[in-house]
Amino acid sequence: MSRRAESPDELVARAREGEARAIGRLISQVEDGSPVLRDVMAALAPYADGARGGPHIVGLTGSPGVGKSTSTSALVTELRRRDLRVGVLAVDPSSPFSGGALLGDRIRMSEHATDPGVFIRSMAARGHLGGVSRATPQALRVLGAAGYDVILVETVGVGQSEVEIARLADTTIVLLAPGMGDGIQAFKAGILEIGDVFAINKSDREGADKVRRDLRSMISLADRPEGAWRPPVIKTVATEGQGAAEVVDSIDEHRAWARESGELERRRVRRTRDEIEAIALTALRERWGSVDAGNRLDGLAHAVIAGESDPYAAADALLED
Amino acid sequence: MSRRAESPDELVARAREGEARAIGRLISQVEDGSPVLRDVMAALAPYADGARGGPHIVGLTGSPGVGKSTSTSALVTELRRRDLRVGVLAVDPSSPFSGGALLGDRIRMSEHATDPGVFIRSMAARGHLGGVSRATPQALRVLGAAGYDVILVETVGVGQSEVEIARLADTTIVLLAPGMGDGIQAFKAGILEIGDVFAINKSDREGADKVRRDLRSMISLADRPEGAWRPPVIKTVATEGQGAAEVVDSIDEHRAWARESGELERRRVRRTRDEIEAIALTALRERWGSVDAGNRLDGLAHAVIAGESDPYAAADALLED
Repeated sequence: MSRRAESPDELVARAREGEARAIGRLISQVEDGSPVLRDVMAALAPYADGARGGPHIVGLTGSPGVGKSTSTSALVTELRRRDLRVGVLAVDPSSPFSGGALLGDRIRMSEHATDPGVFIRSMAARGHLGGVSRATPQALRVLGAAGYDVILVETVGVGQSEVEIARLADTTIVLLAPGMGDGIQAFKAGILEIGDVFAINKSDREGADKVRRDLRSMISLADRPEGAWRPPVIKTVATEGQGAAEVVDSIDEHRAWARESGELERRRVRRTRDEIEAIALTALRERWGSVDAGNRLDGLAHAVIAGESDPYAAADALLED
Repeated sequence: MSRRAESPDELVARAREGEARAIGRLISQVEDGSPVLRDVMAALAPYADGARGGPHIVGLTGSPGVGKSTSTSALVTELRRRDLRVGVLAVDPSSPFSGGALLGDRIRMSEHATDPGVFIRSMAARGHLGGVSRATPQALRVLGAAGYDVILVETVGVGQSEVEIARLADTTIVLLAPGMGDGIQAFKAGILEIGDVFAINKSDREGADKVRRDLRSMISLADRPEGAWRPPVIKTVATEGQGAAEVVDSIDEHRAWARESGELERRRVRRTRDEIEAIALTALRERWGSVDAGNRLDGLAHAVIAGESDPYAAADALLED
């Protein structure tokens, strides 16, 4: 059966009507760097979030084994109970070399697979240093235009992926679990700074209370200006759905605080700056390394290697071009 | 006691005479982004490696717990036995937020601390996404000018730090250990591509032969063009110095192969390109975000948020300025 190629405007119109196939196709175009990508982004522009509107973007991260998939599924169930439409982006920080991805979980969370109010997509982080796919910000634009109320971006917390998630999200949930290490020392550096909500999953296991106590005391010790958000620490058992309502309540509270305090707008400006900057830098790198440009960068590298220039002078020369 | 500030040229001259204090001060200037950094780099330029000369840069990476510090120490001992001068950069991938660093190990490897043929320095990866400090390439230039024959760059293999180390090094050693996970699945994606030499440390423990067997069969299965390097897999017990001589022999063999095949030059060009590009991109980001420039990036972000522009059009506008 032959099919006329759909224009970006047509696809965006159908995505706005909630058609999953159109949404999926737009995300594929974004992910593959399709030639029509610029047209897609232009077609999506009128449906941008604004500083305070749009979907609420929730980052969800934690070490391997804390139960991210079950937690995501439990949160989706709770959000659906509240009649909210939910998008899920599961970002897989696979090797930037192999391009391979453990995407078997594309079919996971099958309980939500037939729910038209839920859109689930796995994305590989291939070709991008760091845990979050380069295409994630643009995929968020697709889901935003398609009218999802909440978008969960889930990624395993290895390396810098938590940091990237936190820079992308309106609210960041850090998942922990008892038995993943002993005491305060086991908390990875930096999670205190990125978590807006902490969930201790598998909290029916021994040690959950100690993890919560340690975490709460670390939170209370941190310097925090007047009126700042104080991250709650919630015990969950995601496999049973326990604690999911409390986590969603906390997301709501954080969102209300962030709108009121200006933090939401600040984060959205930062997210958009990051996105524009990343696109510009990618374009520049392609230009500098291209054969058309006589591979300017190679020439400068050879001059530095030969001792005729130094890296700073070479960078100046590159920027002057 | 007051002290006249030393010029970069003076410091470089003294570093070339092997004076540890001058070397340390130059690396600090590089690390802190000192105002004289450009002068330092210009003063170092004449002592650049060339495509085939200079120190041999050896990357050493592995998961937490495989014994990186003891392995580094054992390799230093073996290299000293061969009368080679050795620089060690231990890069600490701490949180980019906290700026804190677990630099207690600055005093580790104390057996080499009094050896004038060994220079050891810990560097924090702060302010840089990824496991390798942004200043590492310039610190390598300082050590290269100071005449070290081999420079070991050691980093814990989390997130993308292995990939960054492999892009930096002439030869990359990947450390593994038995009991860190079961079988082939436990090997992190991508290590096959980055390892030039594999060392199974703690090989007096159960399971070392299985790790070696599995790894060797993976290596033999990989597509490899005619004349390509085939990474050896060496059993070591770093605490006893066992296997260190074999690892150093393999580094030598890889170096000889890399010189002969052109791979050494290819890697050095890539490393220098990466270094120039990173400096240029950092300069651009500072320019785009600066208040002097009316914070162009903020203005564009606001236009995208308001739906008046899209991120690609905004990136174009940024690049046109």
